[in-house]
Amino acid sequence: MNLNLSEHPHRRYNILTREWVLVSPHRAKRPWQGQEEEVNNEIRPKYDPSCYLCSGNKRANGEINPNYDDVFVFNNDFAALQKSSKKDQFKDGLLLAEGEQGICKVICFSPDHSKSLAQMEVEEIEKVVKTWKKEYIDLGSLEFINYVQIFENKGAVMGCSNPHPHGQIWSQSNLPNEIVKKDSSQKDFFKKNNRSLLGSYLKQEIEKKERIIYENDAFVVLVPFWSVWPFETMIIPKEHQKNIGTLNNDQEVGFADAISTITKAYDQIFNCSFPYSSGIHQAPTNGEKNEHWHWHMSFYPPLLRSATVKKFMVGYEMFGSPQRDITAEQAVKIIKHHL
Amino acid sequence: MNLNLSEHPHRRYNILTREWVLVSPHRAKRPWQGQEEEVNNEIRPKYDPSCYLCSGNKRANGEINPNYDDVFVFNNDFAALQKSSKKDQFKDGLLLAEGEQGICKVICFSPDHSKSLAQMEVEEIEKVVKTWKKEYIDLGSLEFINYVQIFENKGAVMGCSNPHPHGQIWSQSNLPNEIVKKDSSQKDFFKKNNRSLLGSYLKQEIEKKERIIYENDAFVVLVPFWSVWPFETMIIPKEHQKNIGTLNNDQEVGFADAISTITKAYDQIFNCSFPYSSGIHQAPTNGEKNEHWHWHMSFYPPLLRSATVKKFMVGYEMFGSPQRDITAEQAVKIIKHHL
Ligand SMILES: O=P(O)(O)O[C@H]1O[C@H](CO)[C@@H](O)[C@H](O)[C@H]1O
Ligand SMILES: O=P(O)(O)O[C@H]1O[C@H](CO)[C@@H](O)[C@H](O)[C@H]1O
Repeated sequence: MNLNLSEHPHRRYNILTREWVLVSPHRAKRPWQGQEEEVNNEIRPKYDPSCYLCSGNKRANGEINPNYDDVFVFNNDFAALQKSSKKDQFKDGLLLAEGEQGICKVICFSPDHSKSLAQMEVEEIEKVVKTWKKEYIDLGSLEFINYVQIFENKGAVMGCSNPHPHGQIWSQSNLPNEIVKKDSSQKDFFKKNNRSLLGSYLKQEIEKKERIIYENDAFVVLVPFWSVWPFETMIIPKEHQKNIGTLNNDQEVGFADAISTITKAYDQIFNCSFPYSSGIHQAPTNGEKNEHWHWHMSFYPPLLRSATVKKFMVGYEMFGSPQRDITAEQAVKIIKHHL
Repeated sequence: MNLNLSEHPHRRYNILTREWVLVSPHRAKRPWQGQEEEVNNEIRPKYDPSCYLCSGNKRANGEINPNYDDVFVFNNDFAALQKSSKKDQFKDGLLLAEGEQGICKVICFSPDHSKSLAQMEVEEIEKVVKTWKKEYIDLGSLEFINYVQIFENKGAVMGCSNPHPHGQIWSQSNLPNEIVKKDSSQKDFFKKNNRSLLGSYLKQEIEKKERIIYENDAFVVLVPFWSVWPFETMIIPKEHQKNIGTLNNDQEVGFADAISTITKAYDQIFNCSFPYSSGIHQAPTNGEKNEHWHWHMSFYPPLLRSATVKKFMVGYEMFGSPQRDITAEQAVKIIKHHL
C-alpha cells in the first residue's frame, strides 16, 4: 500500500525554500459558499485620461508621463524604500531593527492601457525583458543595493490598484527572507555537487515530462513539484545562469515567448484576465560570485475553481504550512489543455 | 542622525521565526484606488435554517447537529487531513514527499448564529477555551498526532464561508513550517538562558509599556515589535506555560477575558465585524519535554485603512519579505483608543 500522490494527503518538500506544502488531493470536491471575487472581463480603452500610468498623463506627485512608445520606467511615487534612508541598527534587549535603503521603481509594460502581458506581442514583451535586464544591472551596480526584486501584481484581487499593464522593481540593501532561504539551499547544493540545484531539478523534470507545461530552445515552463498556489508555474532557463543580466538576444526572445505562452494559457483557464503575482528570483548583487544561483521566474495565481473563487491562504496556512487541494500534476493537465 | 523607527524605512527582526518584516512608516499616506472589500455589518438571525453549523441542522455529509447549548465539536466534513492516511515516504531524485496523517475538527463557539467572539460573554468564551484545552490534550495524546493547530478564520475576506461563530483544529503527524521555526528559536534561547524567549520578551515589553494593549492577572495583550499585519496582536500568558493543557481555572477566565477584550476593540476600530485569522502556537505533542515552548495566541487581521481597504500581502511580500506601512506603535495607539 504505497503513498499515492494523486489520492492521499501528503506533504511535499520545496528544495529551494526547504519548507513543506500540505497537499490534500481528496479535498478538491469541497463545496464553496464563501466570498466570490469579481470577474475581470472589462474591456478597457487603449488610453484612459484618468490613468496615472498612461502616456502624457499627470501622476500623483504632479509629474507628467512622457509620450512613451513601449516601456516606461519611473521611481515609485509612494516608495516603500528610500535611497536616502538611515542605515543604523537599533538594538535594545530582544528588539532588533535596521535601517533599510532602497529604490522602488514602476515599469509600464506598454502605453496601451487595454492590454496585459497576455495580449502583448512577443516582440513587445521582449522590450520588457530588456528593461528588466537593464534595471537589474543598473540598480545592482549601485553600492548600497544588494538585491533587486522584479515583480508584478496583476488584478485587483492581487492588490493591484491600476489595470494599466505594469510591474514593479524594489531594490534594497538587505536580502529579503525568501532570498535568504533560496540562497542557502542553492549554495549548499552547489558546494556539494558543483552544479546548480535548479539545473539538476530541471534535468529530472525534463526526463519525467510529468510537470512540464512548455519548452522552447532556452526555457522550460513547469509546475514545480512543491508548488503552493493552485496554478503556480515557474519559468527556468535551461542554461545555468545566475541572473538575467547575461541574457543574450536569443534568450531574451525565448524568455518573452515563455512569458507570452503561460500568460495566454492562464487567461484561457477560466476565460478571464487571470490574476497573479509574478516575480524573478535571481542572484543578489552583493559583490559575491553567487555561482550557485540559477535564476527563475514564478507565477503565483490565486484562482482555484473559477474566475470568482480563489484559494485563501489563511488560518492553517498562516499559522502552519501552505496547503493546496488540486495537485501539481492535476494543474499541469488543466494548464496544458489551455495552451 | 539615528534611525527613527516611526519615520524611516527599516526592517524588524522576529525573534520567534527569525525572519524580517519591512516597515515603511512614511508610506501610510499612499492613496488607494484598488479593490474594496464588502463591509460586514449584516445583522444575522440567532438561528439560520440554511446554516450547517446551527443546532439541529443537517450538514453536508447528511449528519444532523445535536441541539447543543454552548460549544460543539465535530470532525471536519471536508478534512484536509485524514486519520487513515498512508505514512510512507516518496523519494525520487530531488522529489521528496511524505504521507501526512491527521484529524481536522470544527468547533462551533456558540449555538447563536448571530454572534462572534466579540459579542459573546466572557463566561461563554471560557467554554471555548476549555474545549480548546480538552481537544489539545485529547488529540495530542494520540500516538500519531505530534502537533495540534487551533485557529479561526473570521470573515469572508479571510476565506470563511460561514458566518456562524466557529473555528477549526487541524492536528497532524508532522510539525508545520511555522512551528519548526518557532521551535528552534525558542529551543536555542532556552538552552542558553534557561528561561523562555517569550517570557523574557514579555518582561521587556512590560517595562517599556509602549506596545502593551491590555493586561489582566494572567495575560498580556500586545502588538509584537515585529508584527506584520496592520493590527496584529498577541496574547501571552505571564506564567511560562508550554501549552494550554495546564491552564488552571483562573487562567482560563483570564484568557477568555483577553480574547473578549481584543476582539471587542477590533470591532470598534472600523465599526464593523473585524475579520482576522487567529491561531494558538504551542508545544508539539511529540513526546518531547518541550520546556522551551511558551504558548501564545496571535491575531492577523487584514484591514488597513477602513472596513473596506485591506493590506495585500502580494508581489513583494510573496517574493521578498512581508511589508507594512503603519508601525506597530501606531497600531497600539489606534487599538488602545478603541478599548
Ligand atoms: O476549511 P474552510 O473554512 O472551508 O476553508 C478555509 O480555511 C482553510 C484553513 O485555513 C483554508 O485552507 C481554506 O482555503 C479556507 O477557505
Ligand atoms: O505598490 P502598489 O501596487 O500600490 O501596492 C501593491 O503592491 C505592494 C508590493 O507587493 C504591496 O505592498 C501592496 O500591499 C499592494 O497593494
